[in-house]
Amino acid sequence: LKVAIVGVGLIGGSIGLASRLLANAEVRGYDPDEGVRARAVELGAIDAQAGDIATAVDGADVVFVAAPVGALAEAVRLSLAAAGPSCVVSDVGSTKRLLVAAGVDRRFVGGHPLAGAETAGVEHARADLFDGATWYLTPAQERTGESMYERLSSLLRRFGASPTAIDADTHDRLMARVSHLPHVLANLLVSQAASMLHGDESQRIPAFGPSFRDATRVAGANSAIWTDIYISNKDALIDAIDAFAAGLQEMRCWLVERQAAEVTAWNEQARANREKLLNIGLLGGAGGEAVLELRVLVPNHPGVVAAIALALGHAGVNIADMALSPSADDHQGVIALWVRGEQHAKRAVELIAGLGFSVVRA
Amino acid sequence: LKVAIVGVGLIGGSIGLASRLLANAEVRGYDPDEGVRARAVELGAIDAQAGDIATAVDGADVVFVAAPVGALAEAVRLSLAAAGPSCVVSDVGSTKRLLVAAGVDRRFVGGHPLAGAETAGVEHARADLFDGATWYLTPAQERTGESMYERLSSLLRRFGASPTAIDADTHDRLMARVSHLPHVLANLLVSQAASMLHGDESQRIPAFGPSFRDATRVAGANSAIWTDIYISNKDALIDAIDAFAAGLQEMRCWLVERQAAEVTAWNEQARANREKLLNIGLLGGAGGEAVLELRVLVPNHPGVVAAIALALGHAGVNIADMALSPSADDHQGVIALWVRGEQHAKRAVELIAGLGFSVVRA
Repeated sequence: LKVAIVGVGLIGGSIGLASRLLANAEVRGYDPDEGVRARAVELGAIDAQAGDIATAVDGADVVFVAAPVGALAEAVRLSLAAAGPSCVVSDVGSTKRLLVAAGVDRRFVGGHPLAGAETAGVEHARADLFDGATWYLTPAQERTGESMYERLSSLLRRFGASPTAIDADTHDRLMARVSHLPHVLANLLVSQAASMLHGDESQRIPAFGPSFRDATRVAGANSAIWTDIYISNKDALIDAIDAFAAGLQEMRCWLVERQAAEVTAWNEQARANREKLLNIGLLGGAGGEAVLELRVLVPNHPGVVAAIALALGHAGVNIADMALSPSADDHQGVIALWVRGEQHAKRAVELIAGLGFSVVRA
Repeated sequence: LKVAIVGVGLIGGSIGLASRLLANAEVRGYDPDEGVRARAVELGAIDAQAGDIATAVDGADVVFVAAPVGALAEAVRLSLAAAGPSCVVSDVGSTKRLLVAAGVDRRFVGGHPLAGAETAGVEHARADLFDGATWYLTPAQERTGESMYERLSSLLRRFGASPTAIDADTHDRLMARVSHLPHVLANLLVSQAASMLHGDESQRIPAFGPSFRDATRVAGANSAIWTDIYISNKDALIDAIDAFAAGLQEMRCWLVERQAAEVTAWNEQARANREKLLNIGLLGGAGGEAVLELRVLVPNHPGVVAAIALALGHAGVNIADMALSPSADDHQGVIALWVRGEQHAKRAVELIAGLGFSVVRA
């Protein structure tokens, strides 16, 4: 199998490694940055480098375009122009509608692996980056040849990924609501909180609570990636913003009218929805048994997290999620732990209480 | 010192324990629930129970009203009616403006300890619940007697808390932006994401990313507490919603016009603001050295968190925060770690790499 990669960064480099090591493919790569190309060869991410897209793509069975979102459409166009009649061309962009709409070529299948968004650079490429990851594919049903789709998806399965067909519109609406909008909200939250700090007033402000910290972890994510993502998915993101703004206005009306019953019903609905998302596995983990939350009050010094994690690890209790909330002066803090299933939750409570910490089910 | 407590739940019970054990006070308590009163005596949270507010308050030097927000105003009124001329009456409600506005009595000082919001019930009361916590006080400057304020704040210092004077208006605006609004956003996010799941479509949806999960941890928080909080702080929360909605509209306009430069500038501003909040300690920990983020790719099985936390703990590297993101099939995941200071970050990278895990600075 001959694979071509256009853009050899973290994702492209990892596709190269996976193609070579897990699928025994021959990999040729192009990157506009000559140093990156050389580095990719050194690291074994590609067998050979090419000086332009046409040379990289020539004779390939599968082409992955892993260029930044802003350069994607042009790189896909050049790849299709150079690709043979039975070659399948895919991309790894995080929004899909525009490309699919533009991609009138039956050899093109849009793709989006849900992996690796947090780092960048071929130095961090790994053959197992996609192990266990969902890899969305957006075939244009009437046009995409079955053999092409199958060649691509069976290669992705060799990477350990789960190729999942989805229509581009649903994909983009989903990403807008579960990824792009939360990033927008995080940015707005930090900037509005920061606007409250004038001079020495910040001296009297203690650490913000866990709800604020958790909601703003992704604030100010890498602009080189995110500006392109926001703008390339602007239609779906605008829809998500409009729906969200309408929800805010509804809450505002209830507040103005002091409608406690409506606020409670809305809050209970949110609780039910969060439990539903947890239980079908959409908030992390494999689904199945419910994820249960424990809260532990602990002294905030080195080794406490270790002691708890070690006790649970020894007993085979997997920690699905963990969040630490130190108090303002670092004297003590609360560890929130999520474990899967009633049996593990009970065992975790016993083990943590056995270490002498106060622990409650949330 | 004679302390009276009106409402003996988690907070009231912890105030009782702290007053008795840390300040050597004599504590009388009232709760509308007779069983709770008896339990509070059993647990040592109060020395004696009273059958009504007037009896509990009679002869007290300091009164804490720890009733639910909705019942607070009336409980404060009854407490002031029964309190002696030099008794100081405080409360623990999470919004302050309405009570201070209503409280024409110079013996009243509003209070809000930032602790214990996550659990409830006198069973979980602890003498050290307030150790290291900020405890906001909202004295009415012209009216509150110095000796009363001093009696209250020195008692709080015996609890290990940091009494911090703030005007009620600033307090409520701050809480609206850093706590109440994030809860509203979390509710809206989960409910809008849940609305995208129709029937078998959810089968094709992988676990949402960490940005969504983190932003929605507090969705559907206890309605018995939160409906009262939202409505009692409605003016400040409406202001926060309006400012937030305006921010959303601004972003919406940039998207419509594809104004990439504006989006990038806004995102960079958010990044700078998050770093500012981290560095002055408002996102947890004691401030000072910058909190730095590491990302570790790990197999997702019991013991991994322990191994990493143990190695860091042994080396004296305190973990300021941690978040786990399992992949969809639980095969592997990413651990995000926050540690304080360049030296600790470097040491953590060495230690984690030494365990054989791939680790990068984010």
